[in-house]
Amino acid sequence: MSETPCIAVLGGTGQQGRGLARRFSRAGARVVVGSRDPVRASRSVAGWASSPLAGRRVEVAENGAAIAQADIAILAVPFASLAAILEEQRHRFKPGSLVIDVTVPVTFSDGKLALLDVPEGSAAEHVKQRLSPDVRLAASFKTIPAHLLDEVELPLDCDEFVCGDSDEARSRTSALVQMIAGLRPVDVGPLARARSLEHLTVLAIAINRRLKIHDARFRVVGL
Amino acid sequence: MSETPCIAVLGGTGQQGRGLARRFSRAGARVVVGSRDPVRASRSVAGWASSPLAGRRVEVAENGAAIAQADIAILAVPFASLAAILEEQRHRFKPGSLVIDVTVPVTFSDGKLALLDVPEGSAAEHVKQRLSPDVRLAASFKTIPAHLLDEVELPLDCDEFVCGDSDEARSRTSALVQMIAGLRPVDVGPLARARSLEHLTVLAIAINRRLKIHDARFRVVGL
Repeated sequence: MSETPCIAVLGGTGQQGRGLARRFSRAGARVVVGSRDPVRASRSVAGWASSPLAGRRVEVAENGAAIAQADIAILAVPFASLAAILEEQRHRFKPGSLVIDVTVPVTFSDGKLALLDVPEGSAAEHVKQRLSPDVRLAASFKTIPAHLLDEVELPLDCDEFVCGDSDEARSRTSALVQMIAGLRPVDVGPLARARSLEHLTVLAIAINRRLKIHDARFRVVGL
Repeated sequence: MSETPCIAVLGGTGQQGRGLARRFSRAGARVVVGSRDPVRASRSVAGWASSPLAGRRVEVAENGAAIAQADIAILAVPFASLAAILEEQRHRFKPGSLVIDVTVPVTFSDGKLALLDVPEGSAAEHVKQRLSPDVRLAASFKTIPAHLLDEVELPLDCDEFVCGDSDEARSRTSALVQMIAGLRPVDVGPLARARSLEHLTVLAIAINRRLKIHDARFRVVGL
């Protein structure tokens, strides 16, 4: 068995998941893209994995198989799909593995940007309620624009905020953030802080829309 | 009558209000500190207005008198005092004047940092419901640490987010932000966006507490 932790990226064919999978594989991690449809996902991965910017070979597996081998599972699926996926796969996560929620439940009703009211308080807490207690959970990668993540040759040059259900979840996630060039992890505390991070994404989208830019993201001054 | 707009800072003897009053007076603005107790406030203002870092002379008036002469009124009072002050002073604001809400309803119950649930959605919307419709409202200066504002010789070097009930409110507030050296205004849209700014303050406080620093604030990258 390899010493390198295995990172499963669920939803690894979407822009955000693809960007994370590509950046982690370039950083030397072992990455498995999880999908409901591994045949289609393999074609997608073959497209970008053959580029000169590709890193280590990226594997593809059905969601459950990807989760079962993962030390770290990143849920890069739409917020609306989380409940169904977690209900189906809840028992597949390895005890002691780390799950990372990257979703932001934004809505655009009548062109108005808002955050969905999540009964659990935040998307991350929504995930927490659906995970086995022997799995650790963190929230991160919520504020970086997906398309920028996916343009792997572009530097990120910003901070990435991390919160989680335990010191262990936060420190493992911070180490993961640090693997990606140009990202500085900033630990903001308990999992419930995810709601504030989700609001930060709303601000980034609002700034992009108002100022007709695409890459608004954040850096903490004074750190 | 002077061409320079008159800025009233209510709660101008607290750290945040004092910092704003001092920084605006150093920038050449006409500033009136509003207080329930103008005699006590005058003593406080005399203390800092005599320092070599003072700017233009700062006046002091009872809250209602300060509001009545203000083109711009900054509500630098605790969130919990807003309702009473606005009920009392609602009719004193000049039609067409600009009100700026800078409050953040944070709570620390059992040492746990959280944002108070405000029925109107945000502190800014709480203010909006208590203002006459002929007054414009913006929210800003929510995310800069009060003590840093008040150390007027220290550079701020960060962004200050602005949202408001109209283009006019946002552009006037952005111009005001720009008067303060080292601050770049970032317009994030409608007044309801204030909730996201209040969450940003929670993040700044959380970062300060976790990393044992004092000056966490934000800059937008990609702008």
